[in-house]
Amino acid sequence: IPRLGLKRIRNQLVEQFRCLEQQSESRLQLLQDLQDFFRRKAELQLEYSRGLDKLAERFSAKIRSSREHQHFKKDQNLLSTVNCWYLVLNQTRRESRDHATLSDLYNNNVIVRLAHVGEDVIRLFKKSKEIGVQMHEELVKVTNELYTVMKTYHMYHTESISAESKLKEAEKQGEKQIGKANDVSTSLLRHDDRQQRRSSVKKMEKMKEKRQAKYSENKLKCTKARNDYLLNLVATNALVAKYYIYDVSDMIDCCDLGYHASLARTLRTYLSAEYSLETSRHEGLDQLEGAVDAMDVRGDKHRVMDMHSQIFCPPARFDYQPHMGDEVCQVSAQQPVQTELLMRHHQLQSRLATLKIENEEVRKTLDATMQTLQDMLTVEDFDVSEAFQHSQSTESVKSASSDSYMSKVNVARRRANQQETEGFYFTKFKEYLNGSNLIVKLQAKHDLLKQTLGEGERAEYGTTRPPTLPAKPRRMRKPRPCSVFNQKLFNGNMEAFIKVLTDWPLCGPSLNSMWSLSVCLNVTRKGSVCLSGLEKSKFHKAKFQGCLCIKCSQTLVAWGLLMTLMPML
Amino acid sequence: IPRLGLKRIRNQLVEQFRCLEQQSESRLQLLQDLQDFFRRKAELQLEYSRGLDKLAERFSAKIRSSREHQHFKKDQNLLSTVNCWYLVLNQTRRESRDHATLSDLYNNNVIVRLAHVGEDVIRLFKKSKEIGVQMHEELVKVTNELYTVMKTYHMYHTESISAESKLKEAEKQGEKQIGKANDVSTSLLRHDDRQQRRSSVKKMEKMKEKRQAKYSENKLKCTKARNDYLLNLVATNALVAKYYIYDVSDMIDCCDLGYHASLARTLRTYLSAEYSLETSRHEGLDQLEGAVDAMDVRGDKHRVMDMHSQIFCPPARFDYQPHMGDEVCQVSAQQPVQTELLMRHHQLQSRLATLKIENEEVRKTLDATMQTLQDMLTVEDFDVSEAFQHSQSTESVKSASSDSYMSKVNVARRRANQQETEGFYFTKFKEYLNGSNLIVKLQAKHDLLKQTLGEGERAEYGTTRPPTLPAKPRRMRKPRPCSVFNQKLFNGNMEAFIKVLTDWPLCGPSLNSMWSLSVCLNVTRKGSVCLSGLEKSKFHKAKFQGCLCIKCSQTLVAWGLLMTLMPML
Repeated sequence: IPRLGLKRIRNQLVEQFRCLEQQSESRLQLLQDLQDFFRRKAELQLEYSRGLDKLAERFSAKIRSSREHQHFKKDQNLLSTVNCWYLVLNQTRRESRDHATLSDLYNNNVIVRLAHVGEDVIRLFKKSKEIGVQMHEELVKVTNELYTVMKTYHMYHTESISAESKLKEAEKQGEKQIGKANDVSTSLLRHDDRQQRRSSVKKMEKMKEKRQAKYSENKLKCTKARNDYLLNLVATNALVAKYYIYDVSDMIDCCDLGYHASLARTLRTYLSAEYSLETSRHEGLDQLEGAVDAMDVRGDKHRVMDMHSQIFCPPARFDYQPHMGDEVCQVSAQQPVQTELLMRHHQLQSRLATLKIENEEVRKTLDATMQTLQDMLTVEDFDVSEAFQHSQSTESVKSASSDSYMSKVNVARRRANQQETEGFYFTKFKEYLNGSNLIVKLQAKHDLLKQTLGEGERAEYGTTRPPTLPAKPRRMRKPRPCSVFNQKLFNGNMEAFIKVLTDWPLCGPSLNSMWSLSVCLNVTRKGSVCLSGLEKSKFHKAKFQGCLCIKCSQTLVAWGLLMTLMPML
Repeated sequence: IPRLGLKRIRNQLVEQFRCLEQQSESRLQLLQDLQDFFRRKAELQLEYSRGLDKLAERFSAKIRSSREHQHFKKDQNLLSTVNCWYLVLNQTRRESRDHATLSDLYNNNVIVRLAHVGEDVIRLFKKSKEIGVQMHEELVKVTNELYTVMKTYHMYHTESISAESKLKEAEKQGEKQIGKANDVSTSLLRHDDRQQRRSSVKKMEKMKEKRQAKYSENKLKCTKARNDYLLNLVATNALVAKYYIYDVSDMIDCCDLGYHASLARTLRTYLSAEYSLETSRHEGLDQLEGAVDAMDVRGDKHRVMDMHSQIFCPPARFDYQPHMGDEVCQVSAQQPVQTELLMRHHQLQSRLATLKIENEEVRKTLDATMQTLQDMLTVEDFDVSEAFQHSQSTESVKSASSDSYMSKVNVARRRANQQETEGFYFTKFKEYLNGSNLIVKLQAKHDLLKQTLGEGERAEYGTTRPPTLPAKPRRMRKPRPCSVFNQKLFNGNMEAFIKVLTDWPLCGPSLNSMWSLSVCLNVTRKGSVCLSGLEKSKFHKAKFQGCLCIKCSQTLVAWGLLMTLMPML
């Protein structure tokens, strides 16, 4: 039975090594798989990176070669929409660079680490096996010893038994002879016989003693051997217990030494790379999002108009062209035309009142339509996060086109709706335009008549009062030099700019019209430009778009215009 | 000069249309570029997605086909390291799916939107131009009218001048005749002459009156024409001003209608897709990071040992094999061996004391070396975020291999250092192992001798006191059935499990050895398993790994072991 136990233990030891070896092989296979995986993934990253770079470069080259770009770049007048496009390309370049970095990190860091972990696994398995072999040798030695001492004990016990039986036999024989001597009467025996019997008893006693000694000797030997066996037995059992409970676990620990830690560091390197790529990506996307937020339809309009200032700059007003020596330069309201003019003035007044009410109605419809349109145009229909939900149950990717909001039917309906509203808006806009054109013309005539008939401003204090008698027409002012218009406006000529501002008598800041008077300058009728409202310090800075005019608290918008004035101030 | 002004305005109007057209063309070009860009990017995403999918599938197929996987899957005994590898593949599949989704969104959402924006640009340009044409026609009409009324005024003024000069001539002639009449005395003239003269004066008066009337008529006509001209002038100037200040801006607004908003929504769709991809990516990476954090060298060891329980389960202890009929089953310490055993006991005692001190020193060195090794193995060298810094100044990507920590020299030095320490650890470990093996054997013998010589536990109370006279060896216990070992341990056989626990007399929780006794069971020497320490409720739950034993407050770790016991409890 100990032999059987021994064989069983030896088989287990062999199997334990095999198990360790299998584990190491599994690890090497895993590491090899990871290396292959990252090598191929690095290739994919590089391909992807190159694709993105090529893509970005294709469009960047196109931009660089276009005249428009040169123009915008030079003037720092990049349109907000174009800026977004540039940032989309920037993001692509960034992604390209980051995926190249990822590829580089896979190849030169992650895979190198994995190779090292593999080397470690092989080396540690060898070293651990060495230790295991040492452990096993010790076990085998001890169990062999146990077997030997057991055999010794068995041998001495056999001898002890045989000595005991011999002693018992001798004792039996001795008892027999004593019995014999007691059975036969001593008198009946001859002296010779008695003598012979006495010596035989003595011989028997001697043999008994000898056998007793032999038995004691063997018994002691057997006791010692048994003690030795028992001591070896506890020692062996203790060692086997130690091996199974502690040593085998320690051996596996030796084999495991650093494997988890090194693999974890490798995977953390991978994670760090992926997280960093994500951070970089996110930064780029945030920049683009900022640019989308900053998309500015009014700003872009001003940039375009600034760039084409000559095309959009108001012309000189039509001056009164007196006929040869006609010294009258104002409307004449003397008799006999006075009555007619008065009548005309009243007609204009009532016509204007009606027109204004009508046009105001049109304007209201126009505003409401625009609001509807704006609501359609700014509907928040861009959240596609649902498409990236990974539910465990449904493995299939949701198609973006199947999304209810972007479904073909829905889109078509929305677009039809939008275009219908747009059409209505344009119809109404034309109506409003016609109305306002008429009002502007009639209002100008009305105002001039009113001024002529009632000495202008004074009539304002009591509109119901009939105009007082007109003053005599004033003499003509000296005509302005016509050359003024030939000079470039807003391109460095302060006078020309003032001329335009004064020609069109629009006093104070007029921010409704974003164009010529969006700059918050107070222009008086006398043609002097009041710049007192602007903070000097801000005025000297190139970027004061968005600053407030202290005087009227309106935001400055057309900084480009002011910039052209600056050298002269 | 008005003609010149008119021509200038007309040129400007043409240029304004051209500018609007150019802007629309730029927009269409931008939209076309964006569509091309996203079409190509969608292709890249799909290629990348397919590459990733193929990569993940290659290794997943390999895993599915491997027996190991089946084994692990079945037993829910996935190694923590292998779990990480599976999650790396999961993440790759997730990336693949997400990039496919991205591609889909580009094609079926972003590009569709861009196409719609393009249609809008074309339609709105056409409609805005229509409105612009209407505006221009109005301007042209008004300026033509102005020209006409000016000409009328000039004509009437000319006529007025001619009438005035005729009137003046008549007046002159009249004065001349009156003078003549005054110069020549009336008496000197004949009656005929006087008559004739009187009629001529009358005629003159009549002519004067006629001319006066003509002049007045012409002057009135001229005044009316001038008034008309002046009124038309202000009206025209007002309309021109309105056009340049408001209308041209409004026309551009019509052209811009919704362009920025729609483009912004398109880009926000793109951003939403990219951000969502990032969120999904991040989720996956977090899962992997969680798995890396949960990598568990001890847990994995137990899983492997659990799976190979037969290989690692301790064998039945070697039982005492008494020789044919030998009834003594304990160490005999009667005379004459008593003295020798006493001496041997003392020798063992002093030998053990020395050995333990020596081995404790080795253990200390071993622990310190392990600490050094652990520090090396867990060094936090995995942060690669620096490689993803995008500084504006340096466009070049930092190479991962050029990083100081992962440089070849550094890595080689670190690895040499690690292996040297590892080598030293193994040397020391062998030394410790030899020492502890010897100690365990001697200790077992020593303890048995002590027990024999001093009746076991009683001797503990006074170690200096010499052992009392030994009791007579007890009679042998009935031997246990040998078949016990043949039964599978930990596979449903409670008796066998208890047998192992009782064979190796290790009472109480022994958590140093994670293996056989890591389950917190109090096993008594008599072989009864005390489970009273475990909360029943927790015990019935499958997952009570990590629970505390109420009695000894040790953490339960090898729940798998307990699970096998549960059906029997």
